[in-house]
Amino acid sequence: MSKENHGTRAKLIAEGRKSMIINGYDGIGLNGILEAAGVPKGSFYYFFKSKEAFATAVLEAYEEHFTQMRDTLFTDPAVSPLQRVRNYFEQVEQLHRSEIELGGCLYGVLGQTARARSAAFRQSLSALFARWQMQIEQLLAQAQLAGEVHASINPAEAAAFLIEAYEGALIRMKVDGNFDAYRRFMSFAFGALHPAD
Amino acid sequence: MSKENHGTRAKLIAEGRKSMIINGYDGIGLNGILEAAGVPKGSFYYFFKSKEAFATAVLEAYEEHFTQMRDTLFTDPAVSPLQRVRNYFEQVEQLHRSEIELGGCLYGVLGQTARARSAAFRQSLSALFARWQMQIEQLLAQAQLAGEVHASINPAEAAAFLIEAYEGALIRMKVDGNFDAYRRFMSFAFGALHPAD
Repeated sequence: MSKENHGTRAKLIAEGRKSMIINGYDGIGLNGILEAAGVPKGSFYYFFKSKEAFATAVLEAYEEHFTQMRDTLFTDPAVSPLQRVRNYFEQVEQLHRSEIELGGCLYGVLGQTARARSAAFRQSLSALFARWQMQIEQLLAQAQLAGEVHASINPAEAAAFLIEAYEGALIRMKVDGNFDAYRRFMSFAFGALHPAD
Repeated sequence: MSKENHGTRAKLIAEGRKSMIINGYDGIGLNGILEAAGVPKGSFYYFFKSKEAFATAVLEAYEEHFTQMRDTLFTDPAVSPLQRVRNYFEQVEQLHRSEIELGGCLYGVLGQTARARSAAFRQSLSALFARWQMQIEQLLAQAQLAGEVHASINPAEAAAFLIEAYEGALIRMKVDGNFDAYRRFMSFAFGALHPAD
């Protein structure tokens, strides 16, 4: 693929992400995406062999961005392990607040109708969630050694719960049009890492 | 509307619920729904003035069903207030387990792309969430008086968090194709009602 085509592909992916986060997989209009990316109608299939392949490419670019963001925040020696997890979710909140139209999380949007998708697509979504969870689990295990997470807590399960409670908060935020659910998520989900004995 | 037409309308609503939970608002095929309900193509607009009006009718029927279920479980004098909330979520899990194809919650599915909907539709979804939350809040306030919920907890916020964590768990369940997230939800979200001092 030429350098120019690489640029066009990247534009399509960026427009696809915007549209899919707001409209969901089934609500996106490929024509609008092609137009916004300045790509002639009809040449979509030159870049992606199917709508599902397009969604997969959008997911991969999205994951790369957030994995790098976590890699940076999760190795910050200036703060404790649990505070790094908090800082990550605080920074994600700021990202959501900077959006003109509150969109949410691409994984959650695509996962919501996962049962209507192909087995291969569901499996790649499932693997994405597992990798995200693993990054957080490793830090929660460190936080547990540092006494910041209760000894009774399973770090893998806790990491999964943080992710799942986050996804649910985003739904309510989109419905209510405010950030109240995010504040609840931060307070209760982190609170659950220290249950009373 | 004749008695026969009432029956047809109810069939359309039942088929619409099934389809929307799996496919989302934008993924439903009206033709398939009309066929499954035995309604001639083209007569959809006799029953509903728009797809959004149809989704609203489906939501209303869904809410009525679950409000009645909660009314029954939430006034069960045989168990403590917090146990009634648990029993409700346990019964909801059994409902999900009885589904042939794991669908999730209609509110969550429609809420996920709420930003792509009309303001009126978002407002009715928001009001649905608020009524659901209120039912749980009242019981959590009783549970707090009974010492089952920590004194520092705000019952309204806690009720909202339970709902939001539940919605998020359903997303992961659909992606992974198992109930692990539901078990985490039950353990951590209820655990958060008793944080360590």
